[in-house]
Amino acid sequence: MNFRARKAAATRAVRALGADGLLVTHPADVRYLCGFTGSNAALVLAGGKSVLFTDGRYTLQAKNEALGTRVTIVSNRPVLPAACEWIVQTGIKRCGFDAAVTTVATLESLRKEVPARIRRSLFMALPSPVARLRQVKDSDEISKIRAAANLGCELFDDMLEYLRPGLTEIDVASTLEYRARQGGAEAMSFDTIVASGERSALPHGHASMAKLPRRGFVTLDFGVVLDGYMSDMTRTVHLGKAQASERDVYDAVLEAQEAAVAIVAPGVTAGEVDEAARSVLRRTGLDRWFTHSTGHGVGLEIHEGPRLGAKQTQQLEPGMVVTVEPGVYMPGQFGLRIEDMVLVTSGGHEILTPSVKAWIEL
Amino acid sequence: MNFRARKAAATRAVRALGADGLLVTHPADVRYLCGFTGSNAALVLAGGKSVLFTDGRYTLQAKNEALGTRVTIVSNRPVLPAACEWIVQTGIKRCGFDAAVTTVATLESLRKEVPARIRRSLFMALPSPVARLRQVKDSDEISKIRAAANLGCELFDDMLEYLRPGLTEIDVASTLEYRARQGGAEAMSFDTIVASGERSALPHGHASMAKLPRRGFVTLDFGVVLDGYMSDMTRTVHLGKAQASERDVYDAVLEAQEAAVAIVAPGVTAGEVDEAARSVLRRTGLDRWFTHSTGHGVGLEIHEGPRLGAKQTQQLEPGMVVTVEPGVYMPGQFGLRIEDMVLVTSGGHEILTPSVKAWIEL
Repeated sequence: MNFRARKAAATRAVRALGADGLLVTHPADVRYLCGFTGSNAALVLAGGKSVLFTDGRYTLQAKNEALGTRVTIVSNRPVLPAACEWIVQTGIKRCGFDAAVTTVATLESLRKEVPARIRRSLFMALPSPVARLRQVKDSDEISKIRAAANLGCELFDDMLEYLRPGLTEIDVASTLEYRARQGGAEAMSFDTIVASGERSALPHGHASMAKLPRRGFVTLDFGVVLDGYMSDMTRTVHLGKAQASERDVYDAVLEAQEAAVAIVAPGVTAGEVDEAARSVLRRTGLDRWFTHSTGHGVGLEIHEGPRLGAKQTQQLEPGMVVTVEPGVYMPGQFGLRIEDMVLVTSGGHEILTPSVKAWIEL
Repeated sequence: MNFRARKAAATRAVRALGADGLLVTHPADVRYLCGFTGSNAALVLAGGKSVLFTDGRYTLQAKNEALGTRVTIVSNRPVLPAACEWIVQTGIKRCGFDAAVTTVATLESLRKEVPARIRRSLFMALPSPVARLRQVKDSDEISKIRAAANLGCELFDDMLEYLRPGLTEIDVASTLEYRARQGGAEAMSFDTIVASGERSALPHGHASMAKLPRRGFVTLDFGVVLDGYMSDMTRTVHLGKAQASERDVYDAVLEAQEAAVAIVAPGVTAGEVDEAARSVLRRTGLDRWFTHSTGHGVGLEIHEGPRLGAKQTQQLEPGMVVTVEPGVYMPGQFGLRIEDMVLVTSGGHEILTPSVKAWIEL
């Protein structure tokens, strides 16, 4: 693992923002920087040192996981005051924290631990320095994401054998999740979406007791967690014979999805990828039913940067992993979405979820 | 559902804290107050009105779920600026927000939307007014929690038939989760813990590829979500013939757990419940391996108030639902935990997870 390199990169990023230390409390950021996966932790980078503060439940686990980081087990009080005490002792002037994951209450409680003369100056709100680093995956992360995406594709192929009218959406979700676990998944990345028939018009239709129809769409949107890294993919298949209008919308969404994937490359902006999908749908007026952004980064969390939304000016970089997932949702009728995970490479991109996207009628 | 009563109670709580409106962004709080279950929403209570702001993905869902609340679908921008605009229009002077779930970045972005003359005064940090209300469950919530807890107990009984040496922990977790889904669970409350053999000494040992031993403990800690409400229970069973020391520790933890449950009643403090468990373990020196607090509230979220930790002075009230879950974890040897969900009633308490706790050797 590259914890040493990651901590060094975080330290450089924080210095560039004017701070001389960093307090990290967001679990995914802690895991990224030092490997610790427990739920209650504070990691401090300051003065060339890194110290992880956690509680007695994690004594064994912290020792095994946080290699190369000093571990302090905090007893009889929360971890943050202990971390704060150490920050004050180091004598640093400006300790950065991530304003996007630190609550107003946490900041107030931190300040209470600090001598009055430095109370207002010690902690410095920063624009998510670790989350920004995490947008660009290193080779270790890419291989983990690849493994999770591969498992996702295998599960989708399995489901093609299993789907049939009369099963409940929950039958489908529970079977998919069981096989995911048997395939080694630590958990699902999010509550599995199985949206069939009219419910396919719900972009976020969690599996319900509704039965798969004899004729109609079924959208599967799911992901697995392997070694902490998440996959995310969506496919929509049709049960029974489709109407021409259903086929037309499918073809349009697929064209939009492929057009957006096609332009993914370093230097292209997130907004341009979104527009590539949206403009295809605009030609036939379907864009009015495309009610969300085109995609998002994925890694240790299911929603990371960059956000592939309208007018987003952030440029893609090699090593980013993003979803591309346009959809069309016509209330009271039907809906569908097609989603891949895409790795930005120096030469362009690679689709990490190569499951079939061509029209499927089961 | 009691959304009208809940919104009225929130309004009263906020007024008592000196604010004349409330901005709610935490999904569980939004769901509690108006029924909406989508992921991107802001609910504003002000001037006797309630308005839910969400995005176009949720047009249908918001209309179906948020009965009695005005719904505004926000296009082409995030929901918070739209909510903020409306708050300013109402002319209220102090709009409360929950400091414990609002990030520093969100507060800054809210303030940017507000005219300069009221920028510092409009938003007022409050100590979790909705989370405090949510600690005391109403009858509708209790019946939902009861249903989730019942499903949990059925699943544990199922698992007693299934557990055997040689299965992997992931076999156990995946089978339990499959059956949970088949029983109607929308999701698991948290990543299922299956910790066997030496791994039972990990308080939070997520299911791994480790095989269940021929002789040793297996701890199962799991929960299901039914209609948004969560269950949480832990049982520890022994595979094969136990050593006397294993049996002794089990008996001590069970005695501690039952002693803590026994004193649960209105007016008792959270710290007294914790101490009731801890003092039993102290008699034999096992308290040094009891490295977490005794319990927590459960409802729409898996960890809610009150926290049953050492020295907590909060008094229990009828309608609270808490876990009581002492454990002992001896690194390199073994560990175990026993956990019930307990409803505080006017006359004392009721155990919601009545699965067997007596020693089980399989």
